[in-house]
Amino acid sequence: MKKRMKTSTRTGLTPGSLAQAGSLKNTTSRIIIHSYGKSLYSEKETADLLKLQEYLNQDPPVLWVHVEGLARIDLLRAIGKHFNLHDLTIEDILNTKQRPRQETFEDYSYLACKALLFNNGKNSPEDEQISLVIGKNYLLTFSEADITSLQPLKKRLESERDIIRKRGPDYLAYSLIDIIVDGYFSVLEYMGERLEILEDELLSRPEQETLQEIHFLKREMLKIRQATWPLREALIGLEKSDSLFVHPDNALHMRDVYSHLVQIIEAIEINRDILSGMLEIYLSSVNNRLNEVMKILTMFAAIFIPLTLISGIYGMNFRHMPELSWYYGYPFAIGLMGAVALVMLIYFRRKKWL
Amino acid sequence: MKKRMKTSTRTGLTPGSLAQAGSLKNTTSRIIIHSYGKSLYSEKETADLLKLQEYLNQDPPVLWVHVEGLARIDLLRAIGKHFNLHDLTIEDILNTKQRPRQETFEDYSYLACKALLFNNGKNSPEDEQISLVIGKNYLLTFSEADITSLQPLKKRLESERDIIRKRGPDYLAYSLIDIIVDGYFSVLEYMGERLEILEDELLSRPEQETLQEIHFLKREMLKIRQATWPLREALIGLEKSDSLFVHPDNALHMRDVYSHLVQIIEAIEINRDILSGMLEIYLSSVNNRLNEVMKILTMFAAIFIPLTLISGIYGMNFRHMPELSWYYGYPFAIGLMGAVALVMLIYFRRKKWL
Amino acid sequence: MKKRMKTSTRTGLTPGSLAQAGSLKNTTSRIIIHSYGKSLYSEKETADLLKLQEYLNQDPPVLWVHVEGLARIDLLRAIGKHFNLHDLTIEDILNTKQRPRQETFEDYSYLACKALLFNNGKNSPEDEQISLVIGKNYLLTFSEADITSLQPLKKRLESERDIIRKRGPDYLAYSLIDIIVDGYFSVLEYMGERLEILEDELLSRPEQETLQEIHFLKREMLKIRQATWPLREALIGLEKSDSLFVHPDNALHMRDVYSHLVQIIEAIEINRDILSGMLEIYLSSVNNRLNEVMKILTMFAAIFIPLTLISGIYGMNFRHMPELSWYYGYPFAIGLMGAVALVMLIYFRRKKWL
Amino acid sequence: MKKRMKTSTRTGLTPGSLAQAGSLKNTTSRIIIHSYGKSLYSEKETADLLKLQEYLNQDPPVLWVHVEGLARIDLLRAIGKHFNLHDLTIEDILNTKQRPRQETFEDYSYLACKALLFNNGKNSPEDEQISLVIGKNYLLTFSEADITSLQPLKKRLESERDIIRKRGPDYLAYSLIDIIVDGYFSVLEYMGERLEILEDELLSRPEQETLQEIHFLKREMLKIRQATWPLREALIGLEKSDSLFVHPDNALHMRDVYSHLVQIIEAIEINRDILSGMLEIYLSSVNNRLNEVMKILTMFAAIFIPLTLISGIYGMNFRHMPELSWYYGYPFAIGLMGAVALVMLIYFRRKKWL
Amino acid sequence: MKKRMKTSTRTGLTPGSLAQAGSLKNTTSRIIIHSYGKSLYSEKETADLLKLQEYLNQDPPVLWVHVEGLARIDLLRAIGKHFNLHDLTIEDILNTKQRPRQETFEDYSYLACKALLFNNGKNSPEDEQISLVIGKNYLLTFSEADITSLQPLKKRLESERDIIRKRGPDYLAYSLIDIIVDGYFSVLEYMGERLEILEDELLSRPEQETLQEIHFLKREMLKIRQATWPLREALIGLEKSDSLFVHPDNALHMRDVYSHLVQIIEAIEINRDILSGMLEIYLSSVNNRLNEVMKILTMFAAIFIPLTLISGIYGMNFRHMPELSWYYGYPFAIGLMGAVALVMLIYFRRKKWL
Repeated sequence: MKKRMKTSTRTGLTPGSLAQAGSLKNTTSRIIIHSYGKSLYSEKETADLLKLQEYLNQDPPVLWVHVEGLARIDLLRAIGKHFNLHDLTIEDILNTKQRPRQETFEDYSYLACKALLFNNGKNSPEDEQISLVIGKNYLLTFSEADITSLQPLKKRLESERDIIRKRGPDYLAYSLIDIIVDGYFSVLEYMGERLEILEDELLSRPEQETLQEIHFLKREMLKIRQATWPLREALIGLEKSDSLFVHPDNALHMRDVYSHLVQIIEAIEINRDILSGMLEIYLSSVNNRLNEVMKILTMFAAIFIPLTLISGIYGMNFRHMPELSWYYGYPFAIGLMGAVALVMLIYFRRKKWL
Repeated sequence: MKKRMKTSTRTGLTPGSLAQAGSLKNTTSRIIIHSYGKSLYSEKETADLLKLQEYLNQDPPVLWVHVEGLARIDLLRAIGKHFNLHDLTIEDILNTKQRPRQETFEDYSYLACKALLFNNGKNSPEDEQISLVIGKNYLLTFSEADITSLQPLKKRLESERDIIRKRGPDYLAYSLIDIIVDGYFSVLEYMGERLEILEDELLSRPEQETLQEIHFLKREMLKIRQATWPLREALIGLEKSDSLFVHPDNALHMRDVYSHLVQIIEAIEINRDILSGMLEIYLSSVNNRLNEVMKILTMFAAIFIPLTLISGIYGMNFRHMPELSWYYGYPFAIGLMGAVALVMLIYFRRKKWL
Repeated sequence: MKKRMKTSTRTGLTPGSLAQAGSLKNTTSRIIIHSYGKSLYSEKETADLLKLQEYLNQDPPVLWVHVEGLARIDLLRAIGKHFNLHDLTIEDILNTKQRPRQETFEDYSYLACKALLFNNGKNSPEDEQISLVIGKNYLLTFSEADITSLQPLKKRLESERDIIRKRGPDYLAYSLIDIIVDGYFSVLEYMGERLEILEDELLSRPEQETLQEIHFLKREMLKIRQATWPLREALIGLEKSDSLFVHPDNALHMRDVYSHLVQIIEAIEINRDILSGMLEIYLSSVNNRLNEVMKILTMFAAIFIPLTLISGIYGMNFRHMPELSWYYGYPFAIGLMGAVALVMLIYFRRKKWL
Repeated sequence: MKKRMKTSTRTGLTPGSLAQAGSLKNTTSRIIIHSYGKSLYSEKETADLLKLQEYLNQDPPVLWVHVEGLARIDLLRAIGKHFNLHDLTIEDILNTKQRPRQETFEDYSYLACKALLFNNGKNSPEDEQISLVIGKNYLLTFSEADITSLQPLKKRLESERDIIRKRGPDYLAYSLIDIIVDGYFSVLEYMGERLEILEDELLSRPEQETLQEIHFLKREMLKIRQATWPLREALIGLEKSDSLFVHPDNALHMRDVYSHLVQIIEAIEINRDILSGMLEIYLSSVNNRLNEVMKILTMFAAIFIPLTLISGIYGMNFRHMPELSWYYGYPFAIGLMGAVALVMLIYFRRKKWL
Repeated sequence: MKKRMKTSTRTGLTPGSLAQAGSLKNTTSRIIIHSYGKSLYSEKETADLLKLQEYLNQDPPVLWVHVEGLARIDLLRAIGKHFNLHDLTIEDILNTKQRPRQETFEDYSYLACKALLFNNGKNSPEDEQISLVIGKNYLLTFSEADITSLQPLKKRLESERDIIRKRGPDYLAYSLIDIIVDGYFSVLEYMGERLEILEDELLSRPEQETLQEIHFLKREMLKIRQATWPLREALIGLEKSDSLFVHPDNALHMRDVYSHLVQIIEAIEINRDILSGMLEIYLSSVNNRLNEVMKILTMFAAIFIPLTLISGIYGMNFRHMPELSWYYGYPFAIGLMGAVALVMLIYFRRKKWL
């Protein structure tokens, strides 16, 4: 939870001064440069400033620069200078704890979004900010960690027949966003399975842990919503502003992604409703169990206390108690107890407690 | 619940690549082609690619192609090619787990909606996606399962005097949507009856099952809302965009369907309110019963424990206990007990516990 | 509850085919025809088709045709034909279970609204649909049952000096809507009185019935809201669309009715808030009573169980128990019990349980 | 509560017929007429029709007519006729139970608002409707009761140096609304103090009365909201429509009042949130106390019941019970009881119940 | 809480009359005047009217006048006169209890916002109103207390190389707002840490104090929201209106601040959701503990009461009780008790209570 928000260490800094906000998972930077076109594809990787500048000076139909790890501010600055990025854009890229949003500049469009990734076998996905800068003939992407989910994109780029090779950086950006949104579906699906297990558990044997799982799932839903809700707005912004950087042909694709986002948001709302219902069932079953416990106690007390009284009466030491000297006095007392117990049992059966 | 959302198996696929999303209930495809006009009506069925193409090349006033089962992607592709459908449209048709929505293209208008059907005597309706493609002189409809509720439409088409024969594919589409929406009313009615039974049950003898039924009905309400809410938006979209494919004469009919949808949505909201109220009554009656149980316990304890004390006192072995040697000591003790019990009973009667 | 929604028996019918939706309370139709103008007023009643057509062919300044009972579809059709009503309008008139709404046609404006009427001394008002068709010089009104609340309107029409005689059918429609809305105030007032009684009951002696009354009132509030909320929208529609059929002079009156509707809606929301608060007080008082019951039990147990132990100790049969042979052993034991009881009483008094 | 809504006695009346809605607190009418300008100020009071007409026929720069008590309909009618007021306006003035709203007419602007006044030392403020009619060079104000809070306004009018003397009736209206809104702050402040007291009470010793106070405050918040919320809209209406009757110079002042209203509405929302939180604390503390009670009961039972068993065992009458003839049998039994009690005490101390 | 709202002492004052609303923390005023430009920087402090006027008459590129402490109304009036401020603006500056808002005047733009400051080691931040008046070449700022968080701003002004020296008063205002917003992040972070501690506590050992901490955090969230929510609107107002006083170059920076505000608002909403969930866990764990207590009681009662009955039976004084004279009668009775206890234990183990 500590990293939920922008750290306050920035307070008082010159706005626009470059500093990492958010904790560093990666202490270095890798830059992967893809140049491609209809009949062209090359991939180069570097962490060297000079080589980077050399690579950037090439002019392929489309240039995709992916930066993994935001530690090397010098490299970021070089990229920023080459593509003429605004200071605030670079600041936004470095601040990995901001919310998804979109900003249109003169030469490019900036989009920040959150990928949800299961890292190291954890059972709760972590969000990883991916920043996109869409220019006329280039796409810059920035992430702090290694985003393995981008692999399929690389494979598609390598295939000469894939439509992605014939389109511009906007289509590439769309494909990337589509992968991120598909990732949300995976998370939602995983949570949906846990929800199902939880539901069975709730009906068979509700425990305090059930409650904690309900709240865990509620918070995961919040997390996914936090990633999707503002992204929806950001995509609208992208579509509206981007006559320059987004080709009208991609508008349909964008609307498709948008509709997936809406579907996710609706599924989250429904899951939240279901979780609320489960909470009510849980609380009610706790109450019902208390009822059961109290019924057992009451029955024990109601049956045995009168019997104890009878035994107590015949344990009194009065000199003149005729029953005591009866030959069948003892069986009579035991019989009396049995009769009282029976009456009680019939009474509780009538009340449907048994 | 597993099928609540788009499966993640698509992650990383080329957007636009054709694959079935959602589970297949039907492993083959049947294509039924209706050609009709004022004085013309024919119905043909095929699952053969060549025959299909032959049928499609006819040019009747109105052509209605209904595809049942989405397994034969080759057939879908042929239809898509013939009617010049966008790749995304075919992808949408195949993805049977999307939400109702509407998309306008140059040559046609696409509408996805959900029919709610009771299958195999289940007590919870399943949603079945029906995709409509409305063109200038054709209507394409796609569903995965056999939609028996379309039968009345066929009967109307066969009758030469029915107005449907004089109108275009937009009127046909409207009639189909009207049938789907009427289906929602049926489901709502069925749920309303269960709600009534539940209400009686709640007042006579609330059980844990009552609670589960309340939550079952809540979720069914969510399901109907999920089908109706986005359909409402989609219909607005259809009305706005469709100067081309929807004749103004049908606008009134569409508004009629729209008003039915609003009525359903309002009924759902009211039912949800009623269900929340029932939950409160249920929880309160559980609490009240606990109160009853505790009152019984308390009365038993309060009446018998003092009596037991009396019997205990006269069971003590002190050498000098005058009462023990009284001739009427025993009846005195029993009488004392009776008096104490009477006082207690009067006390609880005063407290209105009895 | 069964009639809460449009019956599903329509599923599959030709849209536009005339059939009664909603249950028939009235098995025949009465048609009352009022012709009036500044110096003219006549009222005729018929259930005969020929006479009806004759009456309609007169041409008074304003013609008000009121149809009571929707069983005679032939009469409705004749009226529909004479005033050139759209098929959907007649369908809407017949479907008495739709929500209040407004529809503008070329020649007239259609408005459906719900009157709330107390029938046969029931304690819950029933809604009765009233359909209005406002034309240039006529007003058609349709209701299924006998609407006694329209009587004052007739009286006003009979009085030559009443302003209603100088105005058109729009003013008549406004007067009718005003009566319906005033009826909502009556219902709200009746419910307000029950709310007050309930409030007193809640503080003096809350029972399970109190809870049911709370929920009854909640549902009545929902019912009134269902009638008023969409009517508000419908009135806006009427004002906007009706340059043709509603004279600008009446706009002010309409806004007045509109403002009354808003007042009703606000009162409903406040009553719902109050009812929620009452529910919380009820639930809390149930909990408090449980607390009381448990305190009594605990005090009984805590006082008498130690005493019983003392009596038990002196009832033990050990040979060597010095107290037993003390001369004042018995009073000592009784005194000991008294002392223990006193300590306990002081303890509970300190805890403020007594 | 009885007067919460417009009385139904109006049902069936000619709309526009003049009748008092709402109960009469004042059985007569006082009319106070202020004429003022830069160098002019006079105040006259009358309840006489002829004198009234004479006073109205003067033509000072600004004329403020304040009517206190709405019983004398003849006087109201005279005023209405003189200033050419619409019938509906007079009806609105008489209906003191309507919600705050604004209406623009050709010659004037009508505003109804609610003052909240503490009458007769009651602890809950009553709302008092004040109607304003703002014309070009006059302001009419109507209230049913004596509004003492208008005194400061009169004092300002008497002072020649006050800016109010140099401005028109719109500035006077603004000053009056400002006083009413300031009155809301007073009420809110009084409620805030009660909230603080309640908060202390809640933590020290929550009782059923605490709950009732919570609900009392919740309803007061609703009452203030009912007065402020629609007034906000009404002020927007006044600003928009009033190029004629409100001088642009006053727009800033109006926006100031508007911003105060928003502040009040926000404070209400926050107080409602706080009250909900207090309710939760209250309910939870009731539950906690039940827990405490049950712990005491359980400890008593768990400690004394085993001891009673021991005493019961040594009270059995078996011939062969070796312990009974032990010389230290009795101390042994007492010691055994002590040991058992100790074990129990340690057990409960470990469970942190003690 | 007492100072939550504008004090009612203003009721009846001439609107526009200058008086301190809100309590005075500072009984004097300090005025700090910064003059700066590309190559110029001077800072002067005074509390003297004559010196102030002298300082103001200088004409540097940018003039920043910061007023700390609002007690010296003469000084404020002098500043107001020099910069031609509207009376309402000065009134707004003095009323330190208003909500954040923005107002555009002919010559300047007014913005009120709230800084959240931790004073004197308190654990709850206090809000401190800061008023900004942005003119063409000056910025006026007003606060009641000493805002130490403005120190970094002064340091930046002193540094000749800082961009702030090259920009106008709008950039200075932006930098100041940025610092205030960063302060919200600090508060949110501090609350986030407390939330984490609370969460651990909740799972390990929930107490009544946990509940109070939950509510304390809920109210702090409300407080931050109260500061941020209206500020968001105010910033929009600033951006829209300020072509005159805010240079388009700063729009991007403003949008950046705006996006931080949205992030804070979202974080608050999520924290509120989390706190609601924690409340539910707390309440449920209270219920669960009651269940545990009752189980212990029930087990004790159910095991020992039957044993007590056995001991009672063999304590009866019947003459003919064969068991009593058995040689192994006593061990038999003890064994019987053991058997009964065992059966009970097995029963409760089966019920999983043990």
